[in-house]
Amino acid sequence: MQNKHDKTAQHTTHPQPESATASNAVQAEAATETGWGRRDFLKVGSLAAALFGTQLAGCEKTPSPGLGGGQAHASGLSTHVAPGAHDDYYGFWSGGQSGEIRVLGVPSMRELKRIPVFNFDAATGWGATDFSKKILGNRLSGDTHHVHLSYKDGTYDGRYIFVNDKASARLARVRIDIMEVDRITELPNCAGTHGIFPQRHKTGYVFTNSEFRTPMPNDGRDMDSPEKYGAMHTAVDGETMEVKWQVLVEGNMDLCATDYQGKYSFATCYNSEGGVTLEKMMANERDHLYVFNIANIERAVQNGKTIRIGNSTVPVVDARGADSEYVMRIPVPKSPHGVNMDPTGMYAVVSGKLSPTVSVVDVRKLDDAFQKKIKPRDCVVAEPEVGLGPLHTAFDNKGNAYTSIFIDSVVTKWNIAAAIEAYKIKDPKASKEAAAKAILQKLDVHYQIGHINASMSETKEADGKWLMALCKFSKDRYLNVGPLMPENDQLIDMSGDKMKLMHDGPTYPEPHDCVIVKKSIIQPTKIQPRTGPRFEMYEAWAKEDGVNLLKDNKIIRKNGIVRVYMTSQAPKFHFSEIRVTKGEKVQIILTNLDNVEDLSHGLCVTHHDVNFLVNARDTNSATFVADKPGVYWFYCPWFCHALHLEMRGRLIVSDAPTSQPKKG
Amino acid sequence: MQNKHDKTAQHTTHPQPESATASNAVQAEAATETGWGRRDFLKVGSLAAALFGTQLAGCEKTPSPGLGGGQAHASGLSTHVAPGAHDDYYGFWSGGQSGEIRVLGVPSMRELKRIPVFNFDAATGWGATDFSKKILGNRLSGDTHHVHLSYKDGTYDGRYIFVNDKASARLARVRIDIMEVDRITELPNCAGTHGIFPQRHKTGYVFTNSEFRTPMPNDGRDMDSPEKYGAMHTAVDGETMEVKWQVLVEGNMDLCATDYQGKYSFATCYNSEGGVTLEKMMANERDHLYVFNIANIERAVQNGKTIRIGNSTVPVVDARGADSEYVMRIPVPKSPHGVNMDPTGMYAVVSGKLSPTVSVVDVRKLDDAFQKKIKPRDCVVAEPEVGLGPLHTAFDNKGNAYTSIFIDSVVTKWNIAAAIEAYKIKDPKASKEAAAKAILQKLDVHYQIGHINASMSETKEADGKWLMALCKFSKDRYLNVGPLMPENDQLIDMSGDKMKLMHDGPTYPEPHDCVIVKKSIIQPTKIQPRTGPRFEMYEAWAKEDGVNLLKDNKIIRKNGIVRVYMTSQAPKFHFSEIRVTKGEKVQIILTNLDNVEDLSHGLCVTHHDVNFLVNARDTNSATFVADKPGVYWFYCPWFCHALHLEMRGRLIVSDAPTSQPKKG
Repeated sequence: MQNKHDKTAQHTTHPQPESATASNAVQAEAATETGWGRRDFLKVGSLAAALFGTQLAGCEKTPSPGLGGGQAHASGLSTHVAPGAHDDYYGFWSGGQSGEIRVLGVPSMRELKRIPVFNFDAATGWGATDFSKKILGNRLSGDTHHVHLSYKDGTYDGRYIFVNDKASARLARVRIDIMEVDRITELPNCAGTHGIFPQRHKTGYVFTNSEFRTPMPNDGRDMDSPEKYGAMHTAVDGETMEVKWQVLVEGNMDLCATDYQGKYSFATCYNSEGGVTLEKMMANERDHLYVFNIANIERAVQNGKTIRIGNSTVPVVDARGADSEYVMRIPVPKSPHGVNMDPTGMYAVVSGKLSPTVSVVDVRKLDDAFQKKIKPRDCVVAEPEVGLGPLHTAFDNKGNAYTSIFIDSVVTKWNIAAAIEAYKIKDPKASKEAAAKAILQKLDVHYQIGHINASMSETKEADGKWLMALCKFSKDRYLNVGPLMPENDQLIDMSGDKMKLMHDGPTYPEPHDCVIVKKSIIQPTKIQPRTGPRFEMYEAWAKEDGVNLLKDNKIIRKNGIVRVYMTSQAPKFHFSEIRVTKGEKVQIILTNLDNVEDLSHGLCVTHHDVNFLVNARDTNSATFVADKPGVYWFYCPWFCHALHLEMRGRLIVSDAPTSQPKKG
Repeated sequence: MQNKHDKTAQHTTHPQPESATASNAVQAEAATETGWGRRDFLKVGSLAAALFGTQLAGCEKTPSPGLGGGQAHASGLSTHVAPGAHDDYYGFWSGGQSGEIRVLGVPSMRELKRIPVFNFDAATGWGATDFSKKILGNRLSGDTHHVHLSYKDGTYDGRYIFVNDKASARLARVRIDIMEVDRITELPNCAGTHGIFPQRHKTGYVFTNSEFRTPMPNDGRDMDSPEKYGAMHTAVDGETMEVKWQVLVEGNMDLCATDYQGKYSFATCYNSEGGVTLEKMMANERDHLYVFNIANIERAVQNGKTIRIGNSTVPVVDARGADSEYVMRIPVPKSPHGVNMDPTGMYAVVSGKLSPTVSVVDVRKLDDAFQKKIKPRDCVVAEPEVGLGPLHTAFDNKGNAYTSIFIDSVVTKWNIAAAIEAYKIKDPKASKEAAAKAILQKLDVHYQIGHINASMSETKEADGKWLMALCKFSKDRYLNVGPLMPENDQLIDMSGDKMKLMHDGPTYPEPHDCVIVKKSIIQPTKIQPRTGPRFEMYEAWAKEDGVNLLKDNKIIRKNGIVRVYMTSQAPKFHFSEIRVTKGEKVQIILTNLDNVEDLSHGLCVTHHDVNFLVNARDTNSATFVADKPGVYWFYCPWFCHALHLEMRGRLIVSDAPTSQPKKG
């Protein structure tokens, strides 16, 4: 079983092409040689060929011989993590339509945990438990796109993860100490909440962008007047999770970013046309980077220069139309998608999507532009050609940027300072040649890369070790698993002069983005600390019912509910029987008394679609109707003990009222 | 960033201990040295110490220096699979309370896919789509324990995966060609359906065991008469998924197995006492292996020697009480859990759970025992001591067995023939010494192993390459991710004389079991073939409405439903607008016309909790109520094209009836 791909040969890359165009020509040739090339992929979208008028790179069906995961190359890093040894980094992945967050170890790329957020999760009962139902509002699905952690002084403070729901316009927060959601905020006047970003100087605002323009308020008015539609840039307080204010703009907003000082937030705007059909959305050659001036907006909010939309009480600054002290529109080519701030805090890099360029905005020039000393476009200090379909950019600690190129399926490494110098050159030909030299490497990825991120890339502590290429298609890269194939997260060693592909990581669709965080920052607890909104809810109930959650076992009938307070300790539930009458609503509040790490219990009530998790020293609950007479066993579905299978009891549902349960 | 654990030293194992007890003493010493040892784990279960009266092995908090994944050792296998290269085996994992099946590549241990089964899956809309809702009956959760594939002539035929739901007594089938569930069968008169196993000579019956005894029928009668409770061994036709017959027995049944000839099925019975509390369930020193005689049962069914239970029409053979031509009870020590058939088909290995032994049953003797030529117990031909808390057994192709030992947290390798020879020795001391020599190795695993399986182990083609230890606790083996920690699936090279731990694989709780299948057997399609019950449903609707699903875009109002037949092709939905009136029930039936592998679309309707997947050439649908006026964008949540973000349209909900939608 010697693996024939287990070679030490280097992965073929494009050694410093003279220009991006030259590189594309090389790739196009490769596509022809391999037959069914990348070009065919976009044929299915009839518009694409016309739009880009060029060939797509191809190395499909050719497994990269590359240096593989699990082996170190001579001068670089290793993905190998021995059994029992720990990874160096935590990776936090958005789970896309799965509605969850995933926690991975990097560089082993092992998934350590799923954190249910907007989704129903049968394993833990998230979406079925009383607390999760309350904050989810009975919805079962969501679409997470971007995960970002709370910051202090330009780096992660290890307290919170924030994540958006594009489907229902929500922002959720995960407590890192317990890796669970504690708050979900509904964003009023918003549709298609897409980009989010927290402030970086402290846990201040978390900004969110509405991607979809709608009537304001969206209550049935103006439905056929798209010119009246608007979109919201929303500021949520990262501590309280309250919506503090919103800024109403005219265009579609996409990705979001913040500076390092707390002065600005950013949004790419890909539909400055205000189109509601595909063709109209792509009409303009330039769209915008919106820059929001936070101090000016806060002043307007304080001074009441705001409006209210519909029933919402959130103050809204109406900044539609022309540039103002609140919002500046920097023209950038065409339908910009990603915006990423480099670790020095000096440059925001905006990716063109329908232009082969990225635009570098010098953040230090923004004050002058707001004060009209210079034009908005004067803030652009470089615009190198990086490839077809640039989407997002990550950074190392050496002044280099790594842009994901969707259509070419490459990662382009380029030097920021060199691109800026090239842009200064007046002679167009000389400038173009210099800009091409700023392009250091193009590395094939497989296939159609979306987001890209790197270890600590979104902090001032970017360390230039690991680069993650989140590819949307895997096609032939894995054993065939049927029509629904995994995405392909490719781990790249970025520590040397050349990027090297180290590992292909299949993922359940559709991780949009990730952040990679050095492990010293993340310090969860192993035993539930019993704090936060969930425990406030349980303590209020217990107080009302005269119950000590960590001690008492008690059944209370009131307000039409049979409330069962029960404790468990491996391998037993306190009650071996619970007797109720058909039609009664039963609420089981289970407290796990085991004070041992990793010793979770849970409660599954057979034939009642009830299942939830209760970790060590945790309390959790669910409510259901006992709608049929008979004996229904409840059991602990977590293998907690050698006598785990015997950890169970009977829910006895009779037609007539019965006595209290026996102690087991 | 050199990994300090990246050594080539061998993992410490117990080299052929003279007896299991000696080995335990060594382990207990180790526990003392490392401080917080395994002994402490079971302290939390007050019964355990008393039950086993011995020490638990400990190497917690000591990362095994071992040979790691990603590296080959001198004489063995490698876990390294280079980027773009394929794994050698498919692994099919049950997902426990997550309700799903997972598909992994072995030996890389990368998760290639989740297949939602009994769970709500927000990524694909399983549980929300019209077809899945129909077969799930609006339930959202389930508890999968055992996955087994359909067989032909003693090995897998690559057609189906079967999986149980313990929570609601169901059996589901996954079509391997599309890796999707096509049928779910409700098992009548069953509670806590646990063990399942298909016949191995052909896709005949799939047998399922009820773990929980209940009144028969379970309609409110006999609730306080546990002596009248019973449990069902059920035969489901693997082709039609119909329940063909059931056998009613008196005891709790646990794991299930079948022989290779199609003559017998098996169930371990851990509660011969018929207890309903923990203490009573453990009273007897010996419980049973139930052996079901299929020909005799079929004859009784044909001859009408059956009863009916409640409203169920399934014929039931009442085999409660003493041995009969239908069921034989082989006494085995104490509370047996796993039963596994070796690849020769000669031996069924039954694990004691509360006994340190496994019992080897010679299947060739069963005919004589049924004919009362010998006693049931005479079928036991070996009973070696393997360690504390034996649960399950896997096999290589050299006559060795590998038993998972829960309390000791080891895998015990032993030789079947040597154990049988030792059992023949009359002198007890000599017999015991010989049995101890049949124990070849004990390998530490981390921690508390449940199921174990090996490549092709449950077929006649067992190949002795890879062994999977599914450990229930991971504790300190990974970066800390809070109170809910992953399980730990450990991959072991079993190809040499000594087992070697190669890789730690964290998993989301709680995988109970897995099978590892050589890749040549599994041949899914890449494009949806549009066959099976889901397409029968859509074709019936389309015929009724005069629609060609692969061509037509049409909106039909009937029976109070707005039925929207819509096609999509990247990057566009056919309709850019859908106009409905507030309160209307809307059903969107979406067909993906893209005939390109891996090109999935989907439909998310914002603010309506609607999201589902439509793979290439697939059709899928969901129904919802448009309950609020306004503009609600629907979008494709699958990154299908460079203009993916623009692939969207408007659901326009007005207070008054409106005209038909425009083409986009």
